[in-house]
Amino acid sequence: MKSKIKNKLVSKSIIFCLLFLFVASTTTYAVEESTAELFQYHRGQDVFFMFMLVAFLMLFIKKFEWGVCLVTLLTLSVAFPLYVIIQRNLFDFSLGIELIITGIFCAITLIIAAGVIFGHVKIWHFIPLGILFVPGYILNEWFLFSYLEGVADSGGSILVHMFAAYWGWGVILALQRRDVNQAEMNATTHSISFVWLASMLLWVLWPSFTTSLLPTDLIITGMTTTYLALMASTLTAFLVLKWIKGELDPLIYTYAILAGGVAIGSTVDLVGPGTAWLIGAAGGIISVLCFLYLDDWLANKTNLTDTMGVNNLHGIPGIFGGLMGIPFAGSVQIYAIAGGIIIPLVTGLIAGIIVKIFEKPQLLLDDAEIFDINIDLERTQQM
Amino acid sequence: MKSKIKNKLVSKSIIFCLLFLFVASTTTYAVEESTAELFQYHRGQDVFFMFMLVAFLMLFIKKFEWGVCLVTLLTLSVAFPLYVIIQRNLFDFSLGIELIITGIFCAITLIIAAGVIFGHVKIWHFIPLGILFVPGYILNEWFLFSYLEGVADSGGSILVHMFAAYWGWGVILALQRRDVNQAEMNATTHSISFVWLASMLLWVLWPSFTTSLLPTDLIITGMTTTYLALMASTLTAFLVLKWIKGELDPLIYTYAILAGGVAIGSTVDLVGPGTAWLIGAAGGIISVLCFLYLDDWLANKTNLTDTMGVNNLHGIPGIFGGLMGIPFAGSVQIYAIAGGIIIPLVTGLIAGIIVKIFEKPQLLLDDAEIFDINIDLERTQQM
Amino acid sequence: MKSKIKNKLVSKSIIFCLLFLFVASTTTYAVEESTAELFQYHRGQDVFFMFMLVAFLMLFIKKFEWGVCLVTLLTLSVAFPLYVIIQRNLFDFSLGIELIITGIFCAITLIIAAGVIFGHVKIWHFIPLGILFVPGYILNEWFLFSYLEGVADSGGSILVHMFAAYWGWGVILALQRRDVNQAEMNATTHSISFVWLASMLLWVLWPSFTTSLLPTDLIITGMTTTYLALMASTLTAFLVLKWIKGELDPLIYTYAILAGGVAIGSTVDLVGPGTAWLIGAAGGIISVLCFLYLDDWLANKTNLTDTMGVNNLHGIPGIFGGLMGIPFAGSVQIYAIAGGIIIPLVTGLIAGIIVKIFEKPQLLLDDAEIFDINIDLERTQQM
Repeated sequence: MKSKIKNKLVSKSIIFCLLFLFVASTTTYAVEESTAELFQYHRGQDVFFMFMLVAFLMLFIKKFEWGVCLVTLLTLSVAFPLYVIIQRNLFDFSLGIELIITGIFCAITLIIAAGVIFGHVKIWHFIPLGILFVPGYILNEWFLFSYLEGVADSGGSILVHMFAAYWGWGVILALQRRDVNQAEMNATTHSISFVWLASMLLWVLWPSFTTSLLPTDLIITGMTTTYLALMASTLTAFLVLKWIKGELDPLIYTYAILAGGVAIGSTVDLVGPGTAWLIGAAGGIISVLCFLYLDDWLANKTNLTDTMGVNNLHGIPGIFGGLMGIPFAGSVQIYAIAGGIIIPLVTGLIAGIIVKIFEKPQLLLDDAEIFDINIDLERTQQM
Repeated sequence: MKSKIKNKLVSKSIIFCLLFLFVASTTTYAVEESTAELFQYHRGQDVFFMFMLVAFLMLFIKKFEWGVCLVTLLTLSVAFPLYVIIQRNLFDFSLGIELIITGIFCAITLIIAAGVIFGHVKIWHFIPLGILFVPGYILNEWFLFSYLEGVADSGGSILVHMFAAYWGWGVILALQRRDVNQAEMNATTHSISFVWLASMLLWVLWPSFTTSLLPTDLIITGMTTTYLALMASTLTAFLVLKWIKGELDPLIYTYAILAGGVAIGSTVDLVGPGTAWLIGAAGGIISVLCFLYLDDWLANKTNLTDTMGVNNLHGIPGIFGGLMGIPFAGSVQIYAIAGGIIIPLVTGLIAGIIVKIFEKPQLLLDDAEIFDINIDLERTQQM
Repeated sequence: MKSKIKNKLVSKSIIFCLLFLFVASTTTYAVEESTAELFQYHRGQDVFFMFMLVAFLMLFIKKFEWGVCLVTLLTLSVAFPLYVIIQRNLFDFSLGIELIITGIFCAITLIIAAGVIFGHVKIWHFIPLGILFVPGYILNEWFLFSYLEGVADSGGSILVHMFAAYWGWGVILALQRRDVNQAEMNATTHSISFVWLASMLLWVLWPSFTTSLLPTDLIITGMTTTYLALMASTLTAFLVLKWIKGELDPLIYTYAILAGGVAIGSTVDLVGPGTAWLIGAAGGIISVLCFLYLDDWLANKTNLTDTMGVNNLHGIPGIFGGLMGIPFAGSVQIYAIAGGIIIPLVTGLIAGIIVKIFEKPQLLLDDAEIFDINIDLERTQQM
């Protein structure tokens, strides 16, 4: 009888333990799932916020402020729904928070690319450009994460930043419009203060971008590495600019502080805090050097203007960020980077060839192209 | 003996199952509850953010920028505490996150309504107006969600947007002040750039407004429908304005892009993504047509000025949004819309009659009414 | 036999109950922990957002807008990593969300302190100042929360606001540079509109600051008290300024509306809604009176300029907020306040003595000190 009771107690306690583990794990998992999704709502919304801020990062040309905002809104309203339609109908993705986030990633890549193209086309041309952009972007996404396996790029150095820069360059290489080289780009204190605002808020929201698709337990890690990389580029960009030039060009500095965020993209979840700082520091230095030297060299070589200097913040620092993933991902990372240059260049060239059929812009980088500017007291009183 | 054991095992397993379900459901529920509330903190805060952005949406009159900000702050600090006091003491609501959110809904309705009234009264009159506003708003809230049953309006097309427009119109109909028709409303590039910023960030935060009181499992749905509706109005507002006028009035466009968010308010949790896009698209078209045609017609008819054109963004698109709820809510929706016009008009008229006892403003839409403007270098050097 | 079954049932049900409580509590706890941390991500990020907004709160000097932004970025990229390194290596804190939040608290205290010091030093001097700041801040933090026990200061009235004001004053007392008294500080409408934007968004985000280190169940309470305190100061600052001066100085008003948030810092989790409103109301009145009277008195007494009037918003309202904690914390609160004046003054004096070895600034409060201002069309066409 005793042994029977004992047996029973043992079996009972085992059942209890199993039950407990089962209940605990299931419940925790279920909650984690729904909590994580709720939580992703805000990181996703932050990326929409960043999308809009990219417009203000490019707002320094006083007579072309509204135009930048307009293009930003138009590209979003074309590219996002098209991306969602293709992914749902052709590739069977369901319409949840993940698709919303990958969709805004697509749109943010397009608006960064637009920075290369401003002035090369008319404002409404960004609607066909947006339509042409999405299939190329989806091809690249498929190449990086479905065709290749094990690519390190959680924070989008290759997927977003490199694609943006080289798709934009593909378009302007096809268009071959040299008038932009002489376009007036006058700024004022306050147009540049909007750029400071945008840059500083993009800085703050950057971890939501790099961690938006990470598993829950890596989010704080990603926040730490992203902020440390940004702090490093903020410091090194200052030191290098001051050391080389003696004084700061506010437009170079407001852009280069973000290079740490671009550079940490591929390794945001893989490196420790010290390494993150070093990657960001190198990103800041590289970006400043690109703005100071590579930009002119490329403009002379191609006789074309990368209007917002996208290659200096997103292109080269993006490649550098991708390379930092090699110790973790191995040789596949090299294929990813190679594809991340070739695919956007080719699809950008095709898009450029197509939009070349439309008429050239007459007014370059000027709100008067499409807006009623008589509403502006100062503009109508000259200036 | 065997059957006994069997019996026992069966009963035990049933108890276990019940226990499991009970524990699982309770635990999940408890967690969901507290998680949802934590999560609501941020959606609530986003609505406060939107409240402040409404000020910047109305910042285009260069000599009346600070005044708009001041009125925004004053209305909030009067209306919110009064709303909370009334709801706690007269209607026994407890002071939690739900009451904070319904309170900021009340305040945001008031600041939208202020857009109709600017220039018709002095700045400090918005303090008594705020006090008079709250009881009317609470009456409307009670009519829609306690007196009527089953009204579809989770995202506030009727509760917020329609009430704002028609309460404001009630006030100016009572005041009958025609000087505003001639008031100067000069803008500059940068005052309009603030409007772009506000409009684009309101766009981003809009899902937090429409989903702030939705149950947890409908939040991602609401985010999807809201963003798609906004993308649609952003696109159609552009196309319609360009098609009719040839060029864009930046003030019409920055407002009309938000009409999709207004229009989706009643059906944010009820429609699929395609329908949401169509509702938003119609909202954008309707809003542009109101700005282009209805605005003048109404101004001629009444000889009064809706200073910020609130009827064109919130009034008519709000009614349209409310009508979209009919297939889901049935005839009760029609009573809701009727009440949503009559209640604000009548309570607004009463408020207007009361504040008419105060003196008329001398300086219209001018910071100099209340601010020391000598601090502004440019203003003192003329301009 | 019956009694045996009964016994068994009783014991079983007791075990069940215990099991249930255990599972429920454990599971809830586990989830709460991870949920709370996820949730802290966003409150932490909000504090980074506020950090950047402090720059725009000080952007009213048109020819010194970019400089303020630059100092803001430099102080962050120096102070935050240094704080994290010291806390990890000397005091064994682990690098998680708590350390990220206490780190940005340190940085935000420094940038507020910089408001006292602007113009007294060159821009790059803020790098050594940032390095000197961190040890003093950590000493104060240790004094308040490790040496003393039971200090009421969840929202940082003493830790952040008082320390910022008196450390800044320590530095300028050591430097004794009187040129700043004559420095030009011309504003324009739009430079002040940036201040409105910053102030109104700081207002909105303030609860994330005061609740960022609170336990989960006190967050909604803290949000309520913080918002009510801010509404109160927004109203009383208006009434007092209007009553005393007849018209509003926009720079005093945009600052004083935040005094409620400063004043509620020590009691954010301890008082009810009515008391919170009263504390905020008093904070607003005190801040306005400091701007109107104490500021001049102090400037005459010391012959030094508190450039951004930090003592009027953070210093005195911070002391007031600290005093409000006495009913809850008792006499330890008085030691905390005394230490919260002495420690920053002494460590600030030491920092000031050290940076005095560097050359004096030639251009005061002028972007031309370090920026290429030829990029600004208006500035080069005089202005």
